[in-house]
Amino acid sequence: MLTLYYARDTISLATLITLEEVGAPYQTVRIDFAKTEQRSPEYLKVNPKGRMPALVTEQGVITETPAMLVYVAQKFGRADLTLMDDPFAFAQVQSVAAWFCSGLHINHAHRMRGARWVAADEKEAMAAMQRHVPVAVGANYDFVESEILRGPWVMGDRYTICDPYLFTLAQWLEQDGVDPVRIPKVMDHRRRMSERKTVKKALEVEQGG
Amino acid sequence: MLTLYYARDTISLATLITLEEVGAPYQTVRIDFAKTEQRSPEYLKVNPKGRMPALVTEQGVITETPAMLVYVAQKFGRADLTLMDDPFAFAQVQSVAAWFCSGLHINHAHRMRGARWVAADEKEAMAAMQRHVPVAVGANYDFVESEILRGPWVMGDRYTICDPYLFTLAQWLEQDGVDPVRIPKVMDHRRRMSERKTVKKALEVEQGG
Repeated sequence: MLTLYYARDTISLATLITLEEVGAPYQTVRIDFAKTEQRSPEYLKVNPKGRMPALVTEQGVITETPAMLVYVAQKFGRADLTLMDDPFAFAQVQSVAAWFCSGLHINHAHRMRGARWVAADEKEAMAAMQRHVPVAVGANYDFVESEILRGPWVMGDRYTICDPYLFTLAQWLEQDGVDPVRIPKVMDHRRRMSERKTVKKALEVEQGG
Repeated sequence: MLTLYYARDTISLATLITLEEVGAPYQTVRIDFAKTEQRSPEYLKVNPKGRMPALVTEQGVITETPAMLVYVAQKFGRADLTLMDDPFAFAQVQSVAAWFCSGLHINHAHRMRGARWVAADEKEAMAAMQRHVPVAVGANYDFVESEILRGPWVMGDRYTICDPYLFTLAQWLEQDGVDPVRIPKVMDHRRRMSERKTVKKALEVEQGG
């Protein structure tokens, strides 16, 4: 049995959707950011990074979304979700996941998590970061629209782990000040994802837990 | 034949080392940051992100270091470098690679690449980011020392793609203001890596090309 430590409205939704997609038996533990539970001694024992999510397996804990998504797919025999039987196709999936993780997600994080990159009292620098989020994240979505999202799914005809990953990130684009009108393919992808049974179930778990 | 577009003193060294490690036939194209060649129309045709490195294969271009390292190992039948035959072990390797990519490397990038996260005229905000680099990157190396680097290699007894990745990042730690004295395991790892034949060869290629 897998246990996913997750928090609402965070990147953990991508892993929740993938757990639903492969039909994995799992349970969840909700971490409340409002109570800073991600920094509690109990959670730091699970994930010393104090970040979301963490997947507890019988062999140990896995952190970092790109690693978790591949693990869930591989563990449950779903190579179709990673294309890992083909080194080049897998590299394309991995490239998108790495860029979502280190590019799009990080740029988004500069809106609310500026204290990771400047001292806690640098309020003006944090405000400068926040002002730039619509520009940086907007440019990222332009890149998704023109270069990443092949359609109908991220990798083209094949639904992969890149799809829940993009869907989860795309929950935040309006709050980041990105105009949905300029990224019709991304918005259509988000709408189609939201209609999938597994996504509806994952959202229920996320919001209900 | 693979072609690696690389630049000196960048993360491309990790892929160069791995190409040497697997004995891949490859050629290199050097991109000169001093001439902003990473933004030239020619290079943007190879990698529209304008970042280093890019690996051109017969099937197309691969970008993002975590994707490239797994590709090189998998393509040349070296599952021992990724542990990918074991889903949990592979997840641990992937987790480290994802964190190097989105954590350690990104925190380092706030020293010289602040303009990714604030407007170009926000000089004070960029200075605030630079001031924080020794703190953020220093904390990351403390984490590598205590949690990531099992010894003698990152994954313990097994030499994996995490090792050239850490070695490459660790080239920059003094410039980032991290005191080597507080991370003896990291420094010992860097020294032992620098003595490997494949690492010496990759450094020759990087500095000579």
